[in-house]
Amino acid sequence: MKVNGQPFRTIWLNPDDPNTVQIIDQRHLPHQFVIEDLTTVDQAAAAIKEMHVRGAPLIGATAAWGMYLACRAAPQNSSDAFQASIESAASQLHATRPTAINLAWALKRMQQVISSAGSYQRKIETARETAAAIADEEAEACRMIGEHGVALLEEIVEQKDGQPVNVLTHCNAGWLACVDYGTATAPVYAAHDRGIPVHVWVDETRPRNQGARLTAWELGQHGVPHTVIVDNVGGHLMQHGMVDIVIVGTDRTTYTGDVANKIGTYLKALAAKDNQIPFYVALPSSTIDWEIRNGFEIPIEQRGSSEVKTIQGLHDGEIKSVLLTPETSPAANYAFDVTPARFVDGLITERGICPASESGVLELFPEKKI
Amino acid sequence: MKVNGQPFRTIWLNPDDPNTVQIIDQRHLPHQFVIEDLTTVDQAAAAIKEMHVRGAPLIGATAAWGMYLACRAAPQNSSDAFQASIESAASQLHATRPTAINLAWALKRMQQVISSAGSYQRKIETARETAAAIADEEAEACRMIGEHGVALLEEIVEQKDGQPVNVLTHCNAGWLACVDYGTATAPVYAAHDRGIPVHVWVDETRPRNQGARLTAWELGQHGVPHTVIVDNVGGHLMQHGMVDIVIVGTDRTTYTGDVANKIGTYLKALAAKDNQIPFYVALPSSTIDWEIRNGFEIPIEQRGSSEVKTIQGLHDGEIKSVLLTPETSPAANYAFDVTPARFVDGLITERGICPASESGVLELFPEKKI
Repeated sequence: MKVNGQPFRTIWLNPDDPNTVQIIDQRHLPHQFVIEDLTTVDQAAAAIKEMHVRGAPLIGATAAWGMYLACRAAPQNSSDAFQASIESAASQLHATRPTAINLAWALKRMQQVISSAGSYQRKIETARETAAAIADEEAEACRMIGEHGVALLEEIVEQKDGQPVNVLTHCNAGWLACVDYGTATAPVYAAHDRGIPVHVWVDETRPRNQGARLTAWELGQHGVPHTVIVDNVGGHLMQHGMVDIVIVGTDRTTYTGDVANKIGTYLKALAAKDNQIPFYVALPSSTIDWEIRNGFEIPIEQRGSSEVKTIQGLHDGEIKSVLLTPETSPAANYAFDVTPARFVDGLITERGICPASESGVLELFPEKKI
Repeated sequence: MKVNGQPFRTIWLNPDDPNTVQIIDQRHLPHQFVIEDLTTVDQAAAAIKEMHVRGAPLIGATAAWGMYLACRAAPQNSSDAFQASIESAASQLHATRPTAINLAWALKRMQQVISSAGSYQRKIETARETAAAIADEEAEACRMIGEHGVALLEEIVEQKDGQPVNVLTHCNAGWLACVDYGTATAPVYAAHDRGIPVHVWVDETRPRNQGARLTAWELGQHGVPHTVIVDNVGGHLMQHGMVDIVIVGTDRTTYTGDVANKIGTYLKALAAKDNQIPFYVALPSSTIDWEIRNGFEIPIEQRGSSEVKTIQGLHDGEIKSVLLTPETSPAANYAFDVTPARFVDGLITERGICPASESGVLELFPEKKI
């Protein structure tokens, strides 16, 4: 998507330097637009762990490019040493974030192609091709999510006699969370680009405010009308007919339709159900966990209390961190919650929209049937 | 309650100067403890409107003391001019905040006693006595809420074989919202003071963070174990058995049991219902609206977007405001929501606990039957 009118993805190999993967360091948005060079697997792991990049699809793509960097750096004097180095890189990258399934999926795919390739040179080339393919496939999956999801918005606008459809979204499941287009935002961008009137309620999404910082920024850059709200407001809006549809992303969805997503998603799903508002989850199939049946088995990351006790923002042209709580008060920081499938009206995937159920998912992805 | 070991209320007449009402200016908490002098009705109105004081019972008490200040300043050369001045003060105070019912209730009571009193001197004395009585009655009502509510916590601790009861609360319905004791916190303080083990999950309560700033501070000052969480977390905690009871305050509750409270309360009520966790609302009867039957008729205050787009906190020893969103993104700021009575397991009042229903409320307050 565009930044100041110029097309960008969230991650790419520097065309002038095959040693360098480049990312948008999202920690500085919306106040500063910073591009960061990654040249080592340590840097790639830190970029994921410290959330320079975030969002399930982008975490997967970054891990894939991290494996490419690991390949280039691996010792070429012994195939055991090479293999050990690759495995160590995969472990390091895997340990960065526990909830997003795309991370494990991308690492597994990279390890397979690297170990199958013959010469060291071929391993490096294959790693580059596969990381690029993963990024391209994620982007294409998001584009297709938009193609399928836009029909939902179009239908609502028709029912409303052309009045704008009000979408509520939580966190950032936009192009910044992906390689391009976004998941939850893909139908929104598709609608906007076709002239279908759309307005987005953007949950700020404490503690890290990915909504207020990132979703608001990328919607603004693309010209999509939007309004930032605190996370407490969505229920009130739904009670008053001010939300037509909720679309969120997911960090991991079980093949039975349980959805792990940014903490607070479950509260919005409850409100949508209580007010008969459709609640959809947009995801590339790389985000589906084909092994876990019960969403409550998904590991939920706990992060440091400083993300709750302090917050960053712009003051006098500089990004500063301010303390919000009494210095001595403890804080807990659960990063995700699980929305049971019974609250989800549908999953918007690259293959189409399906019910959030085992039978619904397997009908779209029959090759996954055992 | 105590601040650094010294007993405080939130509002009092300066014992050395009958021209001066004193308040804790809560905008500076938890970082600075500031006492503010109010000597004019303008200052009292500003203190309410700009949220130096907040919380339904304290808004009522501040309005009452504001009427006392108005009485002292009213022209004594003509009873028409005096009366006009009193009415103007009441209008000014009434216009400060639309949702809290205690404001209208306290103003009406003050106007009645002032107009009934004979001489100008007697009007002023009566205004002082009545404002003091309103404050004392609010404090006593809160103390009684604690006496009744503590039984709920005691019972849970017994069921848990002496393990601490985990209370979740939203916003600040503590002593800082009242004159003393608090509403939602009154049972917590009563339990803690009796040695009943209690731990409080404190919702930070964006946008103004009354939980993270005020509830955490006052619980900490009193030594009550607590943990600050962002507003998104409560549902996850309830799904995992980490919340035993939810107790919140209210800005206005209809006699039918619909509860207007800080924005986001409704989302917690939904989660409590979905997880079979008791959801109680603590309130002095001054907070009951005896005229409105349907909670959705309660006016919901909208505040400025800057409360959403920026936030204040401590940086390098100074309170600073930082920008959270893109500068150009719009924001909406609904201050309250309505939790329908069907989600409320009970109302904890100064007379006891009753179901959140017309019959339940009228059984405790039979004098209100028409």
